[in-house]
Amino acid sequence: MLRYKIIVEYDGTPFVGWQVQDNGPSVQGLLIAAVAAFTGEQVDVRGAGRTDAGVHALGQVAHFDLARERELEKICDALNAHLRPHPIAVLAAEKVADTFDARFSAKKRHYLYRIISRRADLALDRNRLWRYPRPLDAEAMHAAAQSLVGNHDFTTFRAAECQAKSPVKTLDRLDVEKHDDEIHVIAEARSFLHHQVRSMVGSLALIGDGKWRVADLANALAARDRSACGPVAPPEGLYLVQVDY
Amino acid sequence: MLRYKIIVEYDGTPFVGWQVQDNGPSVQGLLIAAVAAFTGEQVDVRGAGRTDAGVHALGQVAHFDLARERELEKICDALNAHLRPHPIAVLAAEKVADTFDARFSAKKRHYLYRIISRRADLALDRNRLWRYPRPLDAEAMHAAAQSLVGNHDFTTFRAAECQAKSPVKTLDRLDVEKHDDEIHVIAEARSFLHHQVRSMVGSLALIGDGKWRVADLANALAARDRSACGPVAPPEGLYLVQVDY
Repeated sequence: MLRYKIIVEYDGTPFVGWQVQDNGPSVQGLLIAAVAAFTGEQVDVRGAGRTDAGVHALGQVAHFDLARERELEKICDALNAHLRPHPIAVLAAEKVADTFDARFSAKKRHYLYRIISRRADLALDRNRLWRYPRPLDAEAMHAAAQSLVGNHDFTTFRAAECQAKSPVKTLDRLDVEKHDDEIHVIAEARSFLHHQVRSMVGSLALIGDGKWRVADLANALAARDRSACGPVAPPEGLYLVQVDY
Repeated sequence: MLRYKIIVEYDGTPFVGWQVQDNGPSVQGLLIAAVAAFTGEQVDVRGAGRTDAGVHALGQVAHFDLARERELEKICDALNAHLRPHPIAVLAAEKVADTFDARFSAKKRHYLYRIISRRADLALDRNRLWRYPRPLDAEAMHAAAQSLVGNHDFTTFRAAECQAKSPVKTLDRLDVEKHDDEIHVIAEARSFLHHQVRSMVGSLALIGDGKWRVADLANALAARDRSACGPVAPPEGLYLVQVDY
């Protein structure tokens, strides 16, 4: 078998998420169908991050095995042709060793969360950012975010249905930056718990909005209690940007 | 009568353009309906730029007259509520003198044209940029563009159906800039001919792609002949960014 790694961009809006599910179209399911339409081979396509419904990817990584060797450019073009009109694009393909696993070989995952403070609905960026109706203090959010960086028990910021064995993770980076009228939250770690980024961002927004003080985030973390978390931020602001191996 | 100026953002994809037409929904028509739903007044809403079908606006300007005074924030919120679910957002409202005319008082119009060179379809930015399948030389495009800046007869870059009395216009700025994987063409003038920006960008792409030499753009301008123009660039890359008064 020959193993191929692909980089995938998608608009998460119309999908039930990355993973194949019974209740609607998934990115993984459409990729499996595209590989089958192109090669005639029924393969599994395994992704680095199981993004939720509505969450986007600029650089999701996946792998699959083929019996026959294929040109890399042909893989991209053919998969993209079969994926139309779904908003999924294969940006690059690469041949990798059969020990490579998109999920388990990943050394770092980079997420971006985009927030915009404005009252009017988004016309051009609908479903691309979290529209927050009030101004947010990015500096206070950034200061608070630093208390989450490092090795911690992230039970507070973990969905009830999270399947990870342990709630202990190492968060390498959680920066809050202002870019024109947008606030970007940049999160990096080897791996994240289910809903971890959106849970952290939801709590950060409470700080930015003056409803929590900076110290309240560290207290929420120390509580190790899901009920200490702020409201989970909506999926449309979240992007899986890059996965490092 | 009280005159109000509004700043409007829209995704041009689902519309026949700014202007009311018989063949489908227009931004102007939906704004007229929203003003009527909010105030009960049947008014005309006049815009600064009559953008074509598929062309976007970050800062279109329009004006309309009301018999009764309204709070500015209420105007924005109410129009936005009545515009849903159409991708049109009123970003700001201002009371202006009754001599103000969104179209005729405009001193400068700022347009942006976004191009991205890549083979794969756009998943997240579909209908937001011109996807060009080959690399483009932005420096050559910028050098050529400078030959169009100034006061010229723009017959070559004017649609056959253009209704302007004269093809002579003063182009204040035509810059081509590289921003990561995007090429941005920035065009500024008091006013433009119909399809002028898209016609100039289409010819610039020929230069970027090596099909025209830098000097060919000046020759095309000097020809004062529509048939000397390159293919008109598609509408989805074009944004009306700002109008100065």
